[in-house]
Amino acid sequence: MQNPTAAMLVIGDEILSGRTRDANMHHLAKALTDHGIRLAEVRIVPDEHARIVEAARALSGAYDHVFTSGGIGPTHDDITADAIAEALGVPLGIREDARAILQAHYDRQGQELNAARLRMARIPEGAALIDNPVSAAPGFSAGNVHVMAGVPSIFEAMLAGLLPRLTGGAPVLSQSLRVVRGEGDIASALGDLAAANPEVSIGSYPFFRDGVHGSNIVVRSQDGTAVDRVMGELVRMFPEAG
Amino acid sequence: MQNPTAAMLVIGDEILSGRTRDANMHHLAKALTDHGIRLAEVRIVPDEHARIVEAARALSGAYDHVFTSGGIGPTHDDITADAIAEALGVPLGIREDARAILQAHYDRQGQELNAARLRMARIPEGAALIDNPVSAAPGFSAGNVHVMAGVPSIFEAMLAGLLPRLTGGAPVLSQSLRVVRGEGDIASALGDLAAANPEVSIGSYPFFRDGVHGSNIVVRSQDGTAVDRVMGELVRMFPEAG
Repeated sequence: MQNPTAAMLVIGDEILSGRTRDANMHHLAKALTDHGIRLAEVRIVPDEHARIVEAARALSGAYDHVFTSGGIGPTHDDITADAIAEALGVPLGIREDARAILQAHYDRQGQELNAARLRMARIPEGAALIDNPVSAAPGFSAGNVHVMAGVPSIFEAMLAGLLPRLTGGAPVLSQSLRVVRGEGDIASALGDLAAANPEVSIGSYPFFRDGVHGSNIVVRSQDGTAVDRVMGELVRMFPEAG
Repeated sequence: MQNPTAAMLVIGDEILSGRTRDANMHHLAKALTDHGIRLAEVRIVPDEHARIVEAARALSGAYDHVFTSGGIGPTHDDITADAIAEALGVPLGIREDARAILQAHYDRQGQELNAARLRMARIPEGAALIDNPVSAAPGFSAGNVHVMAGVPSIFEAMLAGLLPRLTGGAPVLSQSLRVVRGEGDIASALGDLAAANPEVSIGSYPFFRDGVHGSNIVVRSQDGTAVDRVMGELVRMFPEAG
């Protein structure tokens, strides 16, 4: 059985400029793998309406799920909700349940739900809210697009609430072997092993550290028995590995 | 004057699975910003021929430069050179100058230039080699696509050799102000400031740390005088910032 597929869309001027380092992608990748959803593409685009619309449409059509991060706050450069609504062809307006969540939050804080903050209650028609236990302003799932905050602590909290609602497949299992030999020494044997075992995927990831060339060989499959068997063959092929 | 634009294409099964965290993107983003090239999109795709071809074609047509990382080693899963050659419609074959570089390297190391390692001398016709001072096997620039290794130390060394060959524009200058107020409190004033100063881009990046909500406000422009002026206005608007 094929696992559901997903893409991530990062709305990220600050990442493209090199000002900040994205943290959400790595978190999402691990969480989806554990949940049995295959992350098959990531795109990072600038905070520009047309670019977000175009990427959201392309990814929403190509994958089972799209996860976005960034651009859902109260400021002028927070334009993700507008772009996702346009990409899906649905209207965007203040949602009363979202407004109530914000009102209660700012009442508790003794702050005003001003016009800027009220922008965060604008939700595409028909969307389901995603709970934000950190700072109240909700994310949303519109169609197959799940819109979440860019601040890592909020992104992670939203994802933790969202993931159990999504159907995953069998998790992809992996094991790895660290071989202190250059890839060129092991490539031929590895290629033969990969060809003989199409039920697993075998990846080789070179490293170069402290003057030492080596390779991490990773065997992946939904079939744990097959992973065990191929790992056994690898250990016999490279008995010096550890 | 518009700066040249660029995209990055990461060939990255191991990043999509969450096994490793990409490091090259952040390095490239900073280096391009310093060089006056605007990184306008990043895509991460799996180690699948058709997906690399499709993404390379789309990005090569849309931007002045495409920088790739990953998939140029000697193993069966190193398929980037094949995919880039197909994307650009040029033949791929063993290049004698690349073979000579590899032969000299492995002679020095007392290792054999075997069939797997010789794969790394396969270069698309007409490409310029990119020097690899770390482990010899060269990258290449084919058309506007610059193909580099995924191992961060090698990626960075290749980029350092490549960038001076590429024409940059005026670097985008930025200054930032850290305001310990929630975005909702400053959004309205910030929106007005952005509308009144179209020659700069003003971004607001919320943070939430140790129970404190705040915003980093970033002003960017190729015009340093305009950045200074708008920063002055920001400091007057938020005198408590630091």
